[in-house]
Amino acid sequence: MKLNNLPKMEWKFSARAEQLKSSMIREILKITQRPEVISFAGGLPSTDTFPVERMRAAFDSVLANSGKSALQYGPTDGYLPLREYIAASLSKDGTTIEADQILMTSGSQQGLDLLGKVLLDEGSKALVESPSYLGALQAFSVYRPEFVAVEMDENGLIPSSVAAKGAGARLLYCLPNFQNPTGLTLSQQRRTELVKTCANLGIPLLEDDPYGALCYRGEPMSKMLNMNPEGVIYMGSFSKVLTPGIRLGYVVAPRTLTRKLEQAKQATDLHTAQLTQMAVYEVIKDGFLEQHIPTIRALYSSQCDVMLDALNKFFPKGVTWTKPDGGMFIWVKLPQHIDSMALATESIAQNVAFVPGVPFYAGAPETNTMRLSFVTVSPAKIYEGIERLGKLIASKM
Amino acid sequence: MKLNNLPKMEWKFSARAEQLKSSMIREILKITQRPEVISFAGGLPSTDTFPVERMRAAFDSVLANSGKSALQYGPTDGYLPLREYIAASLSKDGTTIEADQILMTSGSQQGLDLLGKVLLDEGSKALVESPSYLGALQAFSVYRPEFVAVEMDENGLIPSSVAAKGAGARLLYCLPNFQNPTGLTLSQQRRTELVKTCANLGIPLLEDDPYGALCYRGEPMSKMLNMNPEGVIYMGSFSKVLTPGIRLGYVVAPRTLTRKLEQAKQATDLHTAQLTQMAVYEVIKDGFLEQHIPTIRALYSSQCDVMLDALNKFFPKGVTWTKPDGGMFIWVKLPQHIDSMALATESIAQNVAFVPGVPFYAGAPETNTMRLSFVTVSPAKIYEGIERLGKLIASKM
Repeated sequence: MKLNNLPKMEWKFSARAEQLKSSMIREILKITQRPEVISFAGGLPSTDTFPVERMRAAFDSVLANSGKSALQYGPTDGYLPLREYIAASLSKDGTTIEADQILMTSGSQQGLDLLGKVLLDEGSKALVESPSYLGALQAFSVYRPEFVAVEMDENGLIPSSVAAKGAGARLLYCLPNFQNPTGLTLSQQRRTELVKTCANLGIPLLEDDPYGALCYRGEPMSKMLNMNPEGVIYMGSFSKVLTPGIRLGYVVAPRTLTRKLEQAKQATDLHTAQLTQMAVYEVIKDGFLEQHIPTIRALYSSQCDVMLDALNKFFPKGVTWTKPDGGMFIWVKLPQHIDSMALATESIAQNVAFVPGVPFYAGAPETNTMRLSFVTVSPAKIYEGIERLGKLIASKM
Repeated sequence: MKLNNLPKMEWKFSARAEQLKSSMIREILKITQRPEVISFAGGLPSTDTFPVERMRAAFDSVLANSGKSALQYGPTDGYLPLREYIAASLSKDGTTIEADQILMTSGSQQGLDLLGKVLLDEGSKALVESPSYLGALQAFSVYRPEFVAVEMDENGLIPSSVAAKGAGARLLYCLPNFQNPTGLTLSQQRRTELVKTCANLGIPLLEDDPYGALCYRGEPMSKMLNMNPEGVIYMGSFSKVLTPGIRLGYVVAPRTLTRKLEQAKQATDLHTAQLTQMAVYEVIKDGFLEQHIPTIRALYSSQCDVMLDALNKFFPKGVTWTKPDGGMFIWVKLPQHIDSMALATESIAQNVAFVPGVPFYAGAPETNTMRLSFVTVSPAKIYEGIERLGKLIASKM
């Protein structure tokens, strides 16, 4: 029975909670679920790439053959055969990765949270690209570090900027392949330099690689993990090569750190579902990804070409954009005086959505930037949406 | 290619990570996976209670009918029909709970982590039962509160102890039904007192209820949530009534707090798998739990009776234990001079495992206590293991 006349609760949140905000992207996504909106805002993979029937068969087979163990509590570090598979796939260029260096996580996002938990104190220096992946900034910001933005150019993050600003930093967060949000790729030479710079300064180098397999042009670059497995922490995910909703990612780290991350995960959610891990292993163990990933590449690559073509056709002179070699995003720079936040509001009123660039900056933002995703909109709608957006931009010039 | 001659990384962890330790229970569990060990150490439900075929049919049906949406990114707060189901099941005693007060979590453990994240600053006062659930102590300790232990007796936590020690506390953590580790239940009168005491002091009251449905004797008590939905935060889980390995729990809170927890979850792991939530909803939506839970109760209740009988038969005079009305655990008090940590080592050497009581205390531990789980060991092995343990204890008296 409800008790009456109790004093009203005055909620007091932790300092870290006070600064938490809902991601602008997720707020925009809520608006853009209206079917009439052409949305370039999403970071969602295309459901056309989901191997639904294969996943269905795998869940069924695991539950039929190993149901009880798949549904029981499992080990915190994850399902061993899956970790062994991942370790083998990452062992190259003369570097051996072993299963006990791998912690399975509930999506790559959890890897970011655990790394923040384990590496960052309040006020710790955390180096991030400028702009950087918003989800990483959110995950780390809970632990209240001092973010230091490192500069980028068309070849990605600039190692000399790390050398200049990095002393004493607790981590450098880097998304080297087809970065979210810019679509830029860190060049091969920069990778070598960056690994050396971080090792010399004693900075753990976080290599976040959700899009690495989605390469449309050129040769895939070396992983920094393979250049220095004692100093690089690698994050991978099944979100972009299988499906994101299962929430399955992994962190590869030197064992000292892996064990600490494992303890942190135990306190956070005990372990990631065995059933999911066993089903994913069932799906991929016989080389499925080697056939499947090229089909995703083919789809996204043609979508990317369509959007680049539409941008060429419909965006006015004075606007520039990146030409990504892979991934899901194109980054647009408008003339300096155009504020993309204000533009986003007007654009949504015209049923075209994108994400303004500001939230991706930990440091001083470039207010004239925007992120476009090309993966989930049909070619006809890409042309239609980019044309409408181009006209809106032209009206501001 | 691996780079040579790089300086060795000196790992520096955050202050919160430095104090993280692996749970003693999980360490003991690793040892006790040897088949010859009779283990009363586990907190695992019996796989005999898992409705494997029903889960299998549900996963199959969801993937067949809604595969793409089940495998895509989903909302942070969780799958709405499931939240509506939970809200309806918790609306009683004149209190209405609504779906927007509920956040689905990756197991109840994640609810604890998120509540720590959002409510605790370093040095915040956190009131916990003495002894308390180890997983909660672990989850909260990451946020470095000052734990204050509140006293318990055979009727559970003592509200006057909260009144005496509680001023300024950021939370009180309470496990009112068949507590882990003691098996004790908070009496009806104490519940009313406790809700009033917390409301008067402005302390958020965390009601963790993983075992509530597993009631073997007497009438289920009222939920404190229903006495004061504006001041009580309720945590539920599907781990003990369906299966734990899917990692599915929920937090019910006043909306102000639910929205803050949702933001924290977004930064932590985006959301819990839609597929899992949809499959669980498929399993339970037509009232399956109402038929299924009595079968779990019947099994565990008879196991509990067997262990109580074995304790009566084989434990020496001078040893006392709780007689739980539900749940999974019996709490044993040995004579003061017997250290249960040392006993655990000797016991494991004789192939019988239990968890010593010390890690369950945030304050001064009672070193002569131990936790016994009765759910996963066969009756014959319960008698055998308790007899062996009884002899070992008798040899110390």
